[in-house]
Amino acid sequence: MKALVYTGPNSLTIQPRSKPTLQAPTDAIVRMLYASICGSDLHIIKGDVPTIQPGRVLGHEGVGIIDTLGSAVQGFSPGDRVLIACMTSCGACRFCRRGISAHCVSGGWTLGNKTDGTQAEFVRVPHATLGMYRLPDGIDSRMAVAVSDALPTALECGVMNSNVKPGGSVVVIGAGPVGISCVLCAKLYSPSLVVVVDLDEARLQTARKMGAHATVNSADPFQARKMLDELSGGQGFDSVIEAVGIPATFELAQELVAVGGTIANVGVHGTKVDLHLERLWDRNIGINMMLVNATTLPTLLRLVESGMLDVSGLVTHCLPFSQATSAYETFRTASQTKALKVAISFNPEDEEPKGRL
Amino acid sequence: MKALVYTGPNSLTIQPRSKPTLQAPTDAIVRMLYASICGSDLHIIKGDVPTIQPGRVLGHEGVGIIDTLGSAVQGFSPGDRVLIACMTSCGACRFCRRGISAHCVSGGWTLGNKTDGTQAEFVRVPHATLGMYRLPDGIDSRMAVAVSDALPTALECGVMNSNVKPGGSVVVIGAGPVGISCVLCAKLYSPSLVVVVDLDEARLQTARKMGAHATVNSADPFQARKMLDELSGGQGFDSVIEAVGIPATFELAQELVAVGGTIANVGVHGTKVDLHLERLWDRNIGINMMLVNATTLPTLLRLVESGMLDVSGLVTHCLPFSQATSAYETFRTASQTKALKVAISFNPEDEEPKGRL
Amino acid sequence: MKALVYTGPNSLTIQPRSKPTLQAPTDAIVRMLYASICGSDLHIIKGDVPTIQPGRVLGHEGVGIIDTLGSAVQGFSPGDRVLIACMTSCGACRFCRRGISAHCVSGGWTLGNKTDGTQAEFVRVPHATLGMYRLPDGIDSRMAVAVSDALPTALECGVMNSNVKPGGSVVVIGAGPVGISCVLCAKLYSPSLVVVVDLDEARLQTARKMGAHATVNSADPFQARKMLDELSGGQGFDSVIEAVGIPATFELAQELVAVGGTIANVGVHGTKVDLHLERLWDRNIGINMMLVNATTLPTLLRLVESGMLDVSGLVTHCLPFSQATSAYETFRTASQTKALKVAISFNPEDEEPKGRL
Amino acid sequence: MKALVYTGPNSLTIQPRSKPTLQAPTDAIVRMLYASICGSDLHIIKGDVPTIQPGRVLGHEGVGIIDTLGSAVQGFSPGDRVLIACMTSCGACRFCRRGISAHCVSGGWTLGNKTDGTQAEFVRVPHATLGMYRLPDGIDSRMAVAVSDALPTALECGVMNSNVKPGGSVVVIGAGPVGISCVLCAKLYSPSLVVVVDLDEARLQTARKMGAHATVNSADPFQARKMLDELSGGQGFDSVIEAVGIPATFELAQELVAVGGTIANVGVHGTKVDLHLERLWDRNIGINMMLVNATTLPTLLRLVESGMLDVSGLVTHCLPFSQATSAYETFRTASQTKALKVAISFNPEDEEPKGRL
Repeated sequence: MKALVYTGPNSLTIQPRSKPTLQAPTDAIVRMLYASICGSDLHIIKGDVPTIQPGRVLGHEGVGIIDTLGSAVQGFSPGDRVLIACMTSCGACRFCRRGISAHCVSGGWTLGNKTDGTQAEFVRVPHATLGMYRLPDGIDSRMAVAVSDALPTALECGVMNSNVKPGGSVVVIGAGPVGISCVLCAKLYSPSLVVVVDLDEARLQTARKMGAHATVNSADPFQARKMLDELSGGQGFDSVIEAVGIPATFELAQELVAVGGTIANVGVHGTKVDLHLERLWDRNIGINMMLVNATTLPTLLRLVESGMLDVSGLVTHCLPFSQATSAYETFRTASQTKALKVAISFNPEDEEPKGRL
Repeated sequence: MKALVYTGPNSLTIQPRSKPTLQAPTDAIVRMLYASICGSDLHIIKGDVPTIQPGRVLGHEGVGIIDTLGSAVQGFSPGDRVLIACMTSCGACRFCRRGISAHCVSGGWTLGNKTDGTQAEFVRVPHATLGMYRLPDGIDSRMAVAVSDALPTALECGVMNSNVKPGGSVVVIGAGPVGISCVLCAKLYSPSLVVVVDLDEARLQTARKMGAHATVNSADPFQARKMLDELSGGQGFDSVIEAVGIPATFELAQELVAVGGTIANVGVHGTKVDLHLERLWDRNIGINMMLVNATTLPTLLRLVESGMLDVSGLVTHCLPFSQATSAYETFRTASQTKALKVAISFNPEDEEPKGRL
Repeated sequence: MKALVYTGPNSLTIQPRSKPTLQAPTDAIVRMLYASICGSDLHIIKGDVPTIQPGRVLGHEGVGIIDTLGSAVQGFSPGDRVLIACMTSCGACRFCRRGISAHCVSGGWTLGNKTDGTQAEFVRVPHATLGMYRLPDGIDSRMAVAVSDALPTALECGVMNSNVKPGGSVVVIGAGPVGISCVLCAKLYSPSLVVVVDLDEARLQTARKMGAHATVNSADPFQARKMLDELSGGQGFDSVIEAVGIPATFELAQELVAVGGTIANVGVHGTKVDLHLERLWDRNIGINMMLVNATTLPTLLRLVESGMLDVSGLVTHCLPFSQATSAYETFRTASQTKALKVAISFNPEDEEPKGRL
Repeated sequence: MKALVYTGPNSLTIQPRSKPTLQAPTDAIVRMLYASICGSDLHIIKGDVPTIQPGRVLGHEGVGIIDTLGSAVQGFSPGDRVLIACMTSCGACRFCRRGISAHCVSGGWTLGNKTDGTQAEFVRVPHATLGMYRLPDGIDSRMAVAVSDALPTALECGVMNSNVKPGGSVVVIGAGPVGISCVLCAKLYSPSLVVVVDLDEARLQTARKMGAHATVNSADPFQARKMLDELSGGQGFDSVIEAVGIPATFELAQELVAVGGTIANVGVHGTKVDLHLERLWDRNIGINMMLVNATTLPTLLRLVESGMLDVSGLVTHCLPFSQATSAYETFRTASQTKALKVAISFNPEDEEPKGRL
């Protein structure tokens, strides 16, 4: 089979590989239909992820058809169309028992990092009982790739972790694929105000289309802060979602949180930040941060199936696997291409796609 | 002034009364614009409410303009347009401190029960700081009467008390004004399935219009149960809201609750019911019941103001105060008149209303 | 090996059996040190449990040494001394994922019911990764048998499910092994008042020794009610734990619950009960019931190990396996023998025990 | 009457003042029995608190006898012995309604800051209904001063805000009066491990006496860290309470928090700190900070009255009011005097106290 392989910093290549085989009774082999690219994959290419070794097949998102099942995998049959979860978990270790399966002692971010990933014709899914979800018939395979990682990250790390409530106010800082997904997931709880902040006007337009009540361009910080204060009536926001991952945006998050509010950090930070305890210590706030557990996937699939959650706008581009490196480039240059999620298709019918959907 | 007075079982009359005056520094006097009729008012007329004495002015719902303010009332000015809360609370007793203000030692269901109520040209509101809410400009006075009692009862006693969640399944038993309000409030949390059960086809049609995914007519119990089982995939409902108040509907609630689910009792019961502990003891369920605290009113008003909660369909009829007894009759015979909430107008422009809105 | 076998209503016999063998890679075989008898075992003997077939080895509680491990069992080695959980769970089905592992589709109450149990020299533990817990060195094997079922039932179904809090008031109705365990577990949360109600003066004495602030003998219901009202200052109890399972005690629970309080049903009921919604509908209470998940076992073992939870008084009798039928008789006639938990020993050194410890 | 007055940075004097009088119907006048000194009072003296003006009577802690009651004060009679809450709240503003009464728009830290305080023969208590608590007979007045502020701060800001649970692990950084109170309050929830870190060996000894399982002297940071890692089995602590308020201790808090754990900041910080998001973003933790609401005072008083919470060791020194400035000096030099809470007595019988109790 063919696979997209990380061959060292700033280097990725399509290579021939042997089809993966079961290594444990808890494994499954899945034939991929669509994979997608995550911001973490770009971090890998930049050389920022120390856990991955050159030679590793990339990818932890996607949809496929079950090819082979280990004897201990429960609840699936070969031929089932499945969503692959971005996180792997055993369900039994001390972390899984406490509901923090992101830190599973034999799981976590495994695919496309510690074991070969989904950007290949076939993938081996470890701990497959908890790592795959049957896709209901009504859900389009290509659209569903956004549910592997972006949606549960938005719901768990952003929305639930910032305590979004009916009638509350929410600000999302950063309108990338996860930030936009935070808008979609926040609206599940009917806040009366959802504001999105970003530098990119096209992304802010998308945010409004996806349900944001208002958007603020932070190119001029002073003007932006003034607009945000007006929008919140000078009281700050009950829920602040930081979906960028740099000191400046975490600083803004601290300025925007209301008394009694919550900051959820979703961004992946590479450096320490300032925490203004001298201003915040008495403001009755919380700051929460987490690696996604992906335990909300059954809920998210029910919401998509029932039409309560419309994820159709998240996958903006799709390229055939033969053009996988172009797909990475399209995602990397999102400010030009206006990409949110970029899918990679293993479907021969998609061999000559239009790119932009 | 004129007031609608409970003059004993099955008897109510419009009578002249003196305009109420401040009796404590915490009181306010409000000139009424619209009052509305609650199911509890019908219970009074039937003679079911032992706490009320003949001679009492009826009503605990409505919208008006502040006429006079006691010296200790905070946050209001004469002339403010206000929603009157159905419950009175001091904010300081042992129950108020614990968030159970429905049981306030000097409050609770006071208006139209222990003190003269809102179905009069003026009303004295005790503990006015916590008993009135300024109506935002964009909210229509007549429409807002549904927010005094029906909406907070639905949200607090029905929806929050049955733990409605994104992606969950909900069944509402009873499609009266409170049951319909439960549909509206449940949808704030994006459940993937909301089913309504009633005997009245017109009310079920309203339920669908208000957002129910499906409705079931329980005239044929066997057929109804079969349909409900199909709708829930044989697994029962995560949230069961009993909004009728008779043994048969509470029995149905017990049949419909899923393993791990919650029954919220909203109905006012006059007799004991059977609880099937022999079937339910090991099913990991909860049964919750409460008198509304009305502490969600600020949230509800924000939701109405922001357009997230459309309550415009709840007030179906409006009659001038001179026809207040007809208004009661319209509400009492709701199965014929198709009434949900019936408003009583003190606005001279409404003197010749169309009745049905 | 020898095993205690249920041979039909009112009949149990020690029989020779073949030593169990692994049937799935997720199984473990454990050599028993101590087993214990549960109230559910008495229900079996009475013929009340329809799921069990004659010929089944009894028992779902106990401590042993791992003999053999299936290839998929994680986290254990042969020779480990383990506590056996009363409930079996896969960790991956829709119930396990939602934290209701008592309803695991391939687990639940399995041992001594659907598969052969712990009252035998060896037992096969299905889903062993989640069904066994390594016993810390400092914990005595015989004492630990109370942690298999009585303690998690008390903590999960009684104490957590009735929302016991620092400074709150608690009444436990029923002073059997689970009721007494509820006292121990309630005190983990420092309520300011724990009262126990029972008919048996000896058990009430034990309750006081185990930490109850007061006890009430309900032989004279009128007098008992008067004492309970005095103890609660006429306000009822915040947490009411029903640990008997008959209509009369559930009736008492409804009389004793405070406004805003919670009833936790722990008793196993064989018949429906009256629920006084006509009195309770407006009292802001909850009624919770559940089959134990046993997911608190890691917490309980840490508490026992650290000395925060002293379970040494729960196992009152121990008999050698050769006298297992006498052990059942001792437990069945607890009002005479003053037994709480009765252990069965497979340890040759216990061959001539004193019975009463 | 005489009062202790803040007369500018590093300056406080006993001065004659007129006895305070009611200024609103919600006020009460209390004759003081005992006041106590808080760390915040030392901040005032150092000139760190911008809201206080010279000429202000100091103090927000204490116990007294009600002298006069405004007409709107509920639930008290003149002559009642009361605990004065450290925080003032109206019970009705948007913050009070949401349970964040520390930010009450007409309250908060009022006494000894925005209005004259408790370190005087009489004090005017604003919003008195929610600002005073009748002291149960069994509670000693002098001992009770620790309940005004130190105990609710420990329980609300430290223990509840760090999610202390039965069987969990807790580390308290800082063994001053609030840190020691955190140990007492943490133990209400039966964690299996409570460790205290400080530089002062005498305070660590007190911590052990008050219930800490272990203490660590942080004079040698490397050795301290090694001991803490051993105590937590290398897994960190579920609950980390920072009760100092400087960058170094907040840094330690971040090093000690377990995956899935919570840091509660109790310290009053004067400068920003580093937050190591680059290490913590994926560790599923929360950081909570709050100004005490003091809404747990009824619970704390019940716990003290019932003997579940022994606060007798917290007040270590008591001086007569005539020596109030010495009392401040005793408290300021706590590392020499070994003081925890220092009380000031208005009781003539205490005129020649021994200082150290």
